[in-house]
Amino acid sequence: MTVDDLLKQPGAWLAAGKDTGTVVSSRLRLARNLKNRAFPGWAGEDECERIWKDLQPVLGQLRSMTPSFALSMGEIDLLDKQVLFERHLMSREQAEKGKGSGLVAAVDESMSIMVNEEDHMRLQVMRPGLDLDRTWKAIDAMDNEIEQHVSYAFSPRFGFLTACPSNVGTGMRASVMLHVPGLVLANEINPIVKGVSKIGLAVRGLWGEGTEAVGNMFQISNQISLGEKEETTIANLTQVVLEIVEHEKNARARMMERKEAMLCDHVGRAYGILAHAHILTSKEALDLLSGLRLGIDLGILKKMNRRVVDELLLVTQPAHLQKSEGKKLKAKDRDQARASLVREKLKEAEKGEPGSS
Amino acid sequence: MTVDDLLKQPGAWLAAGKDTGTVVSSRLRLARNLKNRAFPGWAGEDECERIWKDLQPVLGQLRSMTPSFALSMGEIDLLDKQVLFERHLMSREQAEKGKGSGLVAAVDESMSIMVNEEDHMRLQVMRPGLDLDRTWKAIDAMDNEIEQHVSYAFSPRFGFLTACPSNVGTGMRASVMLHVPGLVLANEINPIVKGVSKIGLAVRGLWGEGTEAVGNMFQISNQISLGEKEETTIANLTQVVLEIVEHEKNARARMMERKEAMLCDHVGRAYGILAHAHILTSKEALDLLSGLRLGIDLGILKKMNRRVVDELLLVTQPAHLQKSEGKKLKAKDRDQARASLVREKLKEAEKGEPGSS
Repeated sequence: MTVDDLLKQPGAWLAAGKDTGTVVSSRLRLARNLKNRAFPGWAGEDECERIWKDLQPVLGQLRSMTPSFALSMGEIDLLDKQVLFERHLMSREQAEKGKGSGLVAAVDESMSIMVNEEDHMRLQVMRPGLDLDRTWKAIDAMDNEIEQHVSYAFSPRFGFLTACPSNVGTGMRASVMLHVPGLVLANEINPIVKGVSKIGLAVRGLWGEGTEAVGNMFQISNQISLGEKEETTIANLTQVVLEIVEHEKNARARMMERKEAMLCDHVGRAYGILAHAHILTSKEALDLLSGLRLGIDLGILKKMNRRVVDELLLVTQPAHLQKSEGKKLKAKDRDQARASLVREKLKEAEKGEPGSS
Repeated sequence: MTVDDLLKQPGAWLAAGKDTGTVVSSRLRLARNLKNRAFPGWAGEDECERIWKDLQPVLGQLRSMTPSFALSMGEIDLLDKQVLFERHLMSREQAEKGKGSGLVAAVDESMSIMVNEEDHMRLQVMRPGLDLDRTWKAIDAMDNEIEQHVSYAFSPRFGFLTACPSNVGTGMRASVMLHVPGLVLANEINPIVKGVSKIGLAVRGLWGEGTEAVGNMFQISNQISLGEKEETTIANLTQVVLEIVEHEKNARARMMERKEAMLCDHVGRAYGILAHAHILTSKEALDLLSGLRLGIDLGILKKMNRRVVDELLLVTQPAHLQKSEGKKLKAKDRDQARASLVREKLKEAEKGEPGSS
């Protein structure tokens, strides 16, 4: 399996056309480290390389993640790394690593393990929609299987030991990707972000820590991993997400009742610009595609295909775009290639005008 | 002829689909007053009414303006007056007048005479494109014919006497409506506006004095009517207009060469928004329709019909819109009706996507 093979399939995090409503996807990650081995930040390249060589055969043959593929960060180019990042298979930080770091991932992209990012291992499982319980079962199984082969750095008092103290304990981060255009349009998102932050959860943008919320996508995740059982963390997060989903539903319903023209205008303009622009930045594309997603959810765009929108969310990203063009492109040229790709895909998808009411 | 009849035909000032290029239309007006009669501002309603009653039969039977129709400002409602204003048949000021003021106009809308606006008579002739010479011949003939029936207030020293000293002399204002999206997009319009002002010409927006330039439409007209022959004024204005046309042509050519994607993007977005928005203000509609006009001129929108764009420029105006909806509408409802009308007309006009390159 190569990165080029990945490009032929839809990404796991977008659920590939499934109607997941407000919750795009659920994700869990566990930070795990090997006993008696220096953390990656201390280890130096040679030790990291040894750890990667030790772990790769183990992680590549997990029954809980079959079939899988492994990629060494020292052997793939930057563009391929960016593709893996854009598919949410690994972090931006891992994309900056070289020799000694690696990625093992399920061919269907639902599971992945970063080796020697901040910790020796970062296990991840993603599922479409709100499904943290099954996600937990899957990552717990993977975690248990790995532990049959290696010894984890573990303290009976603190729990799993990690490079950053903020992850000590369960080493778990549970996060849910929400698409909340209703709350954004109704100008109700800020109090919710503030409220969520107050109860110990973090709100982040599409690409995690330190990123801006584009495309009306927000990630909500736990901050605390110490002194709380995984099931409790997951139950709390699920509860909060369900409340936000309810708020989003209400905001949409209220606007459909009182401001239908405004919603139709928002969706119509998003479609009109995507279908006819010749220059589109990555951020604008995400924002406008959010408008199409909302239009589909609300039944305003009756003929629009959800799968096409999800595909566009993925393939309009900078690295995906350059892979599909077969060459490196400057930002300016990417914006033109992106607009051209979007025009083409929308035209293909529709055969005629969308059913704007 | 009623205002409702006018609505069935294209307006004269937009040339109804003719490819007039950068110069949309040429317009001349002459301010004329009757000898020994108080100017309208002094006359009082009764005297104004007598003047209108005296003039209407004369002006309604001019050979130089046949067939024509006459409307008394005291007898038509505000919406009809606004329609006449939007069709550039009379001024915003005249639309505010009542009994004692009137309009006589050619059925084809190329000529009109306001009675008792600021002056007893304001003669106007409009022609598509840059055609001030023939426009002058037409208005001069009308002026001469009227003078066979009435005596003008005229001073051998100053020329024609007018209510406002700024019109004394020839009483003529020559103006040309320019569509210069190239200069606006290339950010070259401001120095030109400044230069034109320095040589004694006025630059105004689409609706004349004190109005903003919307839809990239600018009116250029003479400021001076004293001590200069009509032919000289017209020749000077024509010369300046030809220079601006050249500048516009160069700006477009330069952008097509160096920034084609930007132009295609500008035009494509204008089309996309017009074809899919559900809320459109009058100003935004004009600005976007300017984009379509440019797209047609440059061959970017190959299937778009020029006549449809010109029609939309007229029928999306507030009073026209309300007439076509058959009722008075609040601004908010107009914006929705406008968007709906534009979507419908563009869909009708195209049968398929426009040939965006």
